[in-house]
Amino acid sequence: MTEDVRISEIFGPTIQGEGPLIGRPTVFVRTAGCDYRCRWCDTLYAVLPEYRREWAVMTPSAIAARVNALAGDQPILVSLSGGNPALQPLDNVIALGHRSGHSFALETQGSIPQPWFADLDWLILSPKPPSSGMTTDWAAFDACLTAAGAGPQFALKVVVFDEADYAYARTVASRYPKLAPYVQVGNPAPLAVAGHALPEVADFADLTRRLRWLVTRTIEDRWFEVTVLPQLHVLAWGNKRGV
Amino acid sequence: MTEDVRISEIFGPTIQGEGPLIGRPTVFVRTAGCDYRCRWCDTLYAVLPEYRREWAVMTPSAIAARVNALAGDQPILVSLSGGNPALQPLDNVIALGHRSGHSFALETQGSIPQPWFADLDWLILSPKPPSSGMTTDWAAFDACLTAAGAGPQFALKVVVFDEADYAYARTVASRYPKLAPYVQVGNPAPLAVAGHALPEVADFADLTRRLRWLVTRTIEDRWFEVTVLPQLHVLAWGNKRGV
Repeated sequence: MTEDVRISEIFGPTIQGEGPLIGRPTVFVRTAGCDYRCRWCDTLYAVLPEYRREWAVMTPSAIAARVNALAGDQPILVSLSGGNPALQPLDNVIALGHRSGHSFALETQGSIPQPWFADLDWLILSPKPPSSGMTTDWAAFDACLTAAGAGPQFALKVVVFDEADYAYARTVASRYPKLAPYVQVGNPAPLAVAGHALPEVADFADLTRRLRWLVTRTIEDRWFEVTVLPQLHVLAWGNKRGV
Repeated sequence: MTEDVRISEIFGPTIQGEGPLIGRPTVFVRTAGCDYRCRWCDTLYAVLPEYRREWAVMTPSAIAARVNALAGDQPILVSLSGGNPALQPLDNVIALGHRSGHSFALETQGSIPQPWFADLDWLILSPKPPSSGMTTDWAAFDACLTAAGAGPQFALKVVVFDEADYAYARTVASRYPKLAPYVQVGNPAPLAVAGHALPEVADFADLTRRLRWLVTRTIEDRWFEVTVLPQLHVLAWGNKRGV
């Protein structure tokens, strides 16, 4: 039986603005619904039930057709995001997409394991630091790693706003030495405007100050295994979604 | 016999601002001297003979000791840059550094092959597009690939200022389908001030406009194998060199 998927939006191609695939052309498939409520969530329209009217229920083949149309039937990287995309049955989307030559990266907080994680090309685990207001369930996180097995490439991505987040990132990275660690500069814009449309113009000076702080912090600590990145799409397009 | 190396500067740790290792903490070893004179060169102090008084001749062990001191004796990524670092005998620097656990990435235009390219962890080939005013010697470029053999990971990085550069990047990428292609937004600041100190404040609006153009250009073309990146250090620090 093919299960339907709850979708917030499908858009692109644009470039991936974050993490290990930064700069790569990609189509985003953003699923709807989330088991988390992060304080600084920048995609509340894909999370909160009051946006449900804007969501669509799509079959895997309709999703695959939409991706193919956006990509002009060329193979491309597909970024599965949310919300928490692990809440949705994405196995058939991945299988259909692979047949068209696409590759799949999924980003999740690691709260819900799925057997089809093993079918991904990339699994980007992004546990949420203290500033999110969420608490990590490490047993669920470990189960995500077990479910993925030797299938995908892995990355560990932690958003860092402050010292407590930084300490959390260090602890998580040392707990999972085999996962390539990434720390990402937090974008405070959503904090200021939760529940409202984001301002289209990002505060450049603030974002680059945060980037410099995070670089200095990792260098002072001699944490040389980490990769420090901003959200490139925010620098390029403010809080819009890309091209 | 151990040959001495001509050095412009050794600095860091900071983060690598470009290419496949973007965001990675690194120590830069910038060698002096170049067989090219790119119009938009942003490190003329490592290229032009009139800066010779500022260069140092160092033994490989002195270079390795300086890298170790900067990195606090922790293993780190060492970025070998220039000028053209392929002009210098870096085999012993690499061998000594590997013994300390460092990894080595070298960036060169690909005009001078060296047998020790095979000892590198990363070889980033950055042939220069028409806007540079230089002409690529493809036989030399191919000889660099042959010299490196199966040793390092490869990347192909092309700076793009305009349509002619973009066309060059596409041609080079299609000529070397096994090299992961990167296009990098050109930074015009050096054009305006060649021979003078760079302004410390980068023109953010101009750089992000260039980034958006390059993203749009690749997406319109459905060039989905490429990675599109800015110079992160310029966004974070203007035209200074990092932390």
